[in-house]
Amino acid sequence: MAVNLAPPDPAALRPVPGVELGFAEAGIRKAGRLDVMLVRLAPGTRVAGVFTRNGFAAAPVQVCREHLARASAIRALVVNAGNANCGTGERGLADARRTCAEVAALLGCPPHEVLPFSTGVILEPLPVDRLVAALPRCVDSLAEDHWARAASAIMTTDTVPKGASTTVVLDAVPVVATGIAKGVGMLQPDMATMLAYLATDAAIADPVLRALVRRVADRSFNRVTVDGDTSTNDSFVLMATGRSAAAPIESESDRRLPALEAALVEVAGRLAQAIARDGEGATKFITVEVGGARDEAESLRVARGIANSPLVKTAMFASDPNLGRLLMAIGNARVDALDPSRVQLWLGDVRVIEDGGRAAAYREEDGARVMRPDEIGVRVELGRGEASTTVWTCDFSYDYVKINAEYRT
Amino acid sequence: MAVNLAPPDPAALRPVPGVELGFAEAGIRKAGRLDVMLVRLAPGTRVAGVFTRNGFAAAPVQVCREHLARASAIRALVVNAGNANCGTGERGLADARRTCAEVAALLGCPPHEVLPFSTGVILEPLPVDRLVAALPRCVDSLAEDHWARAASAIMTTDTVPKGASTTVVLDAVPVVATGIAKGVGMLQPDMATMLAYLATDAAIADPVLRALVRRVADRSFNRVTVDGDTSTNDSFVLMATGRSAAAPIESESDRRLPALEAALVEVAGRLAQAIARDGEGATKFITVEVGGARDEAESLRVARGIANSPLVKTAMFASDPNLGRLLMAIGNARVDALDPSRVQLWLGDVRVIEDGGRAAAYREEDGARVMRPDEIGVRVELGRGEASTTVWTCDFSYDYVKINAEYRT
Repeated sequence: MAVNLAPPDPAALRPVPGVELGFAEAGIRKAGRLDVMLVRLAPGTRVAGVFTRNGFAAAPVQVCREHLARASAIRALVVNAGNANCGTGERGLADARRTCAEVAALLGCPPHEVLPFSTGVILEPLPVDRLVAALPRCVDSLAEDHWARAASAIMTTDTVPKGASTTVVLDAVPVVATGIAKGVGMLQPDMATMLAYLATDAAIADPVLRALVRRVADRSFNRVTVDGDTSTNDSFVLMATGRSAAAPIESESDRRLPALEAALVEVAGRLAQAIARDGEGATKFITVEVGGARDEAESLRVARGIANSPLVKTAMFASDPNLGRLLMAIGNARVDALDPSRVQLWLGDVRVIEDGGRAAAYREEDGARVMRPDEIGVRVELGRGEASTTVWTCDFSYDYVKINAEYRT
Repeated sequence: MAVNLAPPDPAALRPVPGVELGFAEAGIRKAGRLDVMLVRLAPGTRVAGVFTRNGFAAAPVQVCREHLARASAIRALVVNAGNANCGTGERGLADARRTCAEVAALLGCPPHEVLPFSTGVILEPLPVDRLVAALPRCVDSLAEDHWARAASAIMTTDTVPKGASTTVVLDAVPVVATGIAKGVGMLQPDMATMLAYLATDAAIADPVLRALVRRVADRSFNRVTVDGDTSTNDSFVLMATGRSAAAPIESESDRRLPALEAALVEVAGRLAQAIARDGEGATKFITVEVGGARDEAESLRVARGIANSPLVKTAMFASDPNLGRLLMAIGNARVDALDPSRVQLWLGDVRVIEDGGRAAAYREEDGARVMRPDEIGVRVELGRGEASTTVWTCDFSYDYVKINAEYRT
């Protein structure tokens, strides 16, 4: 069960002028569920993306990289659930290219202006004929207000569809940012690729857009972890249609950029948190803040060390204020010349570690109190600098093992 | 339950001339169990060690490093179970130093010729008075044939004591190597520090010994993983008493060194495997071999990536030949410019991945057959070089979560 996560209210997912979404049931893996999603983008839309660093990058990821290297002017995205088209060699590449060509023919654009995405089982050939057969129905259903249904169409093992939306006013002109994502962390890579699509009607020039997608990812999806595993298909794309009345953002020094960036980070952050809340078997949503680091990379290493430790995660599941494990996880983060005597740690509002040892005033019942709720905060101060980071994760439960052990009976 | 692991036959743990072992019940954490172990080393014994890289290195680890930096001539080791003396600040250091001083007074040597070790709960003060009170009984029980009982005295959550022994003939002179270890991986750092003690009656000069202990650790304890976490107290020491009739090994070019090193690696490897077999909740013992790498570091990264992936480990628990997860884990090991089409993978004797895709001849029932036994082999060929590595691990079961969630009722 997801931790405090409701499906997005369709009315709250504001349409983004220039973005239409359609979907269909292709029966790729199971019958009777939406499993193909198509996005049509208005001419002039610019797109940038970040993709998995896994060495077995799936065929669609390779094709996305090729197409984006050629041009950022993209007219369509096509996403299928149920099959990852990964570990499928030359045939997989041909299938991804054919999908793009079919979409291009239907929409009247060159194939390299289409980006393909897949999520689902690895090492199985993509049933490309079924996918292609469903595309005309996707086109027929294209509409600007279909974000909520699109969020459902890209789900695999997700228990809740994930969407978020906001508006920001740039020089008195309102701009929209709306996004959807799927994934329950990287913890079931057979089916649990993270895919995220974020669109705005602002106009953003290519170099700014390319830098922006990385910065937004760094402050959202790269801050969420379920078990430290990375899928072969992870993708996040940012689309800027330029349909708002706001003048284009042409450079990093545009004074409107910080407000727009904050809005994009807000939407992406909500999607990222939704992924941790829906983590497989999750019973707790955990926020790990690490401050006092020399630089952001150091704070991130410590935060991830805590968030990924199976020992910390099982203690969270048990609502057990196990201070030794937290200390161990900090020490394992390979912080150069860490001075333990400067390390402070809070669970919720309770200071539990003071100057590297147990806090003098700490009482076990205070620790137990803050561990009981289904949302737990861990805050660390390293005492060596000013940099800080926040990471979101979930606990490690019996259901994690159950779901992932997947008895075949 | 440990996987195919029996306690060592006391008769099989050969005494090492120059090494006497004693033990006592100090009641450090629980009454009625051995929890202190003392090793007396003959004059002239040389010792070298490798210690945890955790930034919260415990007080005894800090004192060990100090003493070994001063001189390798060590006369005693003192080990307590039940309390890790970690996160204990200045008081912890004072307690570790006092323990050394008391042992030194009893044995008639300077305090810096004593090495202290602790394993048990973190962030609690060491009950040093109880420890010190038990030392005379340790001295009274010193004997060369006490290796098996010493292995029991250092256990915490281990379910089986761990010891191994061999002999090697150097220029017609037999030399003994005997070792004991404790730890069930780093997976319960409250109690599960890895400690390992390996002694030989060969004479080995300091520079050779210092290099040797690292090489032996690299090929044994650094090849075992349970959950990727590293304890604050991990220690491995190699003792060379020089009591055998074999002439001293003074340099790396000594032509007898490879045979001795192989014997030490054999004993340390058996101890390391015992740790994985006794991993918390283990139901499978898994050997991961990675070959065809550009260098050993690369092969180790891939092997550890597979061995530490919670997704791979839960699939092993379920006896599920989940090829996608293995592919994902290889891809996540950040091998520079990995060519997926050169990657081959075998489960036991069944080739499952061929040139980066599912093997043409692979049948699910063959995968299921090799996953069923309680010992499973995974072999990967990366196809980019000649280097290879083997890593040992265990699976990830409901009992892992149960043991580590440790409900406090």
